[in-house]
Amino acid sequence: MFEFEVQHTDGRARIAQFHTPRGTVTTPMFMPVGTQGTVKGISPQELTDIQSQMILANTYHLMLRPGEALVEAHGGLPGFTGYPGPFLTDSGGFQVMSLGHMRKITEAGVVFKSHLDGRMVDLSPERSVEVQQALGADVIMAFDECPPFPAEREYIERSLERTVRWLERCLTIKSRPEQALFAIVQGGIHLDLRARSLELTLPFGTPGFAIGGLAVGESKAEMYPAVAFTAQHLPEQRPRYLMGVGHPEDLVAGIALGVDMFDCVYPTRTGRFGYALTDDGRLNMNSSAPRTALEPIDPDCDCYACRQYSRAYLAHLVRAEEMLAPRMLSLHNLRYLHRLVERTRRAIETGTLHDWALAWAQRYFKGTVPEWFLRALDTGKSMQGGGVR
Amino acid sequence: MFEFEVQHTDGRARIAQFHTPRGTVTTPMFMPVGTQGTVKGISPQELTDIQSQMILANTYHLMLRPGEALVEAHGGLPGFTGYPGPFLTDSGGFQVMSLGHMRKITEAGVVFKSHLDGRMVDLSPERSVEVQQALGADVIMAFDECPPFPAEREYIERSLERTVRWLERCLTIKSRPEQALFAIVQGGIHLDLRARSLELTLPFGTPGFAIGGLAVGESKAEMYPAVAFTAQHLPEQRPRYLMGVGHPEDLVAGIALGVDMFDCVYPTRTGRFGYALTDDGRLNMNSSAPRTALEPIDPDCDCYACRQYSRAYLAHLVRAEEMLAPRMLSLHNLRYLHRLVERTRRAIETGTLHDWALAWAQRYFKGTVPEWFLRALDTGKSMQGGGVR
Repeated sequence: MFEFEVQHTDGRARIAQFHTPRGTVTTPMFMPVGTQGTVKGISPQELTDIQSQMILANTYHLMLRPGEALVEAHGGLPGFTGYPGPFLTDSGGFQVMSLGHMRKITEAGVVFKSHLDGRMVDLSPERSVEVQQALGADVIMAFDECPPFPAEREYIERSLERTVRWLERCLTIKSRPEQALFAIVQGGIHLDLRARSLELTLPFGTPGFAIGGLAVGESKAEMYPAVAFTAQHLPEQRPRYLMGVGHPEDLVAGIALGVDMFDCVYPTRTGRFGYALTDDGRLNMNSSAPRTALEPIDPDCDCYACRQYSRAYLAHLVRAEEMLAPRMLSLHNLRYLHRLVERTRRAIETGTLHDWALAWAQRYFKGTVPEWFLRALDTGKSMQGGGVR
Repeated sequence: MFEFEVQHTDGRARIAQFHTPRGTVTTPMFMPVGTQGTVKGISPQELTDIQSQMILANTYHLMLRPGEALVEAHGGLPGFTGYPGPFLTDSGGFQVMSLGHMRKITEAGVVFKSHLDGRMVDLSPERSVEVQQALGADVIMAFDECPPFPAEREYIERSLERTVRWLERCLTIKSRPEQALFAIVQGGIHLDLRARSLELTLPFGTPGFAIGGLAVGESKAEMYPAVAFTAQHLPEQRPRYLMGVGHPEDLVAGIALGVDMFDCVYPTRTGRFGYALTDDGRLNMNSSAPRTALEPIDPDCDCYACRQYSRAYLAHLVRAEEMLAPRMLSLHNLRYLHRLVERTRRAIETGTLHDWALAWAQRYFKGTVPEWFLRALDTGKSMQGGGVR
């Protein structure tokens, strides 16, 4: 269980089979986010159709509503949500931290005010694991502290040490062998603090490791050296999960740097706002050009929206505020990211990731590929260096 | 083309095959409403899965946005919306009439203020047919005047005569043999005016006839004698379409009275409001009971929502205001109506409609079957009488 078999590498990038109780998934992979037990607007059958593999669900939201007991009464997330494949739950830590003044953090855990009814709720390493065991995902996450950006160096350092103590408490209470608990490496954008977090976290030997605390406000130029450094120092034979990150350019850069798993609300959220992801960048369906265009969003895409509809029809749905618009744009955007990852896999298999990614980026960024992206690709190609500038 | 072959009868109720250019449909049938070129939240594939047959689209909405030219550029409604089967378009008359002070009716037609941008727009018999030809539905409707309820008898009488003159103008300009134009019988709840409208309308010999001007505010006890009378006097060998009517009890009573076609926004609208249709009446998914119920909405239903989800999960989606809630409840409600019609067909085939409908109503109305419903069933069973009390 939870073996991670690397099958191909190209620079730091790799393709692997990750075995979970509910099925084997191929990495790199993008995980759609089903915050409240549903990927917004998308059915389980559609997730299967677009070749989603693992779905993320949020502990914070589900513990507050409908409560983990009801999910457990359905036999866990697959029975509750109808998606039969593997799930990953976060720990609730990130959501709780972002409540700002509505929460108080101590060594014991976090006390916070529910955004639903204002009642005070406790969340601790023990409680997070208890809830995640009831939710029944295949992969569960350690309860960590994710410092805001910017934060004092000293705060980040104290916080990453507390995260390690919390990891230990999570592992002590965890009792279900059918669930893998991933540790989370923190340290912000400071490579020495990342090194410190790695030093303290790696000895726990968890079946996977996450890179946490990024994409919280720092620039991509600040973020990617931390991704590169952390990914490089994580064990080869364990999956690496870059939490909460998943714009198209992040998938390509992250995969080049050896990241295996991603999740992000971006494809569904931007879909609800009327945008379609394409190799030419983000297409605004509210603009005038799509309104009369008889071609699909992407002629190469095999999603239902691209097989069935013209841009003009989808633009009409957006303008008419029809529910089918967010539904179809979310579906397409998820499929776009899955296809993007599949394309990186084919490039890895043939040892051409760097060139493929550069060509993709030339088109995606309309000729002006940002420095941070080029640097990530170059770092990913070289087996040395660790992303330090 | 447009043959209507009656295969079974049971009292006034009948089963028929109605041949259209885009396929043969079996009546009685309920037509989902795709006002703006989409049945709200539902994909064409889902419409096929739940065995929808013919889809209604609204001329008023589509002529204003995106405009009929764009729909025609897609090859008509099937190419635009992705639903490959037969369509019916209304004439725009009903919507325009309901604009109240924002429209002016003359013998020439109606001038109205667009609800989208306030510009003044003309709609006439000629323009309605022109737009409907561009939209390309299989069945198109005559441009009629639908009086409000209550209305003066004299107004209704003048109006139904104008509707006949408008019908003549529609038929004069109509040029596409692949489209059938249905005439509309008016007359409100006055049986003598219905008789007058029938007398003036039937000679046109259109391939189908609609019963218009009902379900506009009158009670069911006032409405059903008009349905019974009109349906009884329409030709046996032409489909009869009761416009804008489609609560479950209306389908059962209308079918008993010899109606073949129905449409209504009710199943999708009540679904968006969080209600599920069942044989036990309308289930409020916002109430407390469904929140912990592990069974499906309806164990006998074969829709995706009932095969996949518990009431508790769907109630969670409703409370969490997740898009999947209106989508799944709309899907179930449409399938409920299609299944209800299928069940009446099986009863007609075995000559048991009256008893089946009575048993269904006992449960649906929780023991207190209303007088109008019983009367409709009795009238439907008797071949004489015409619903006059």
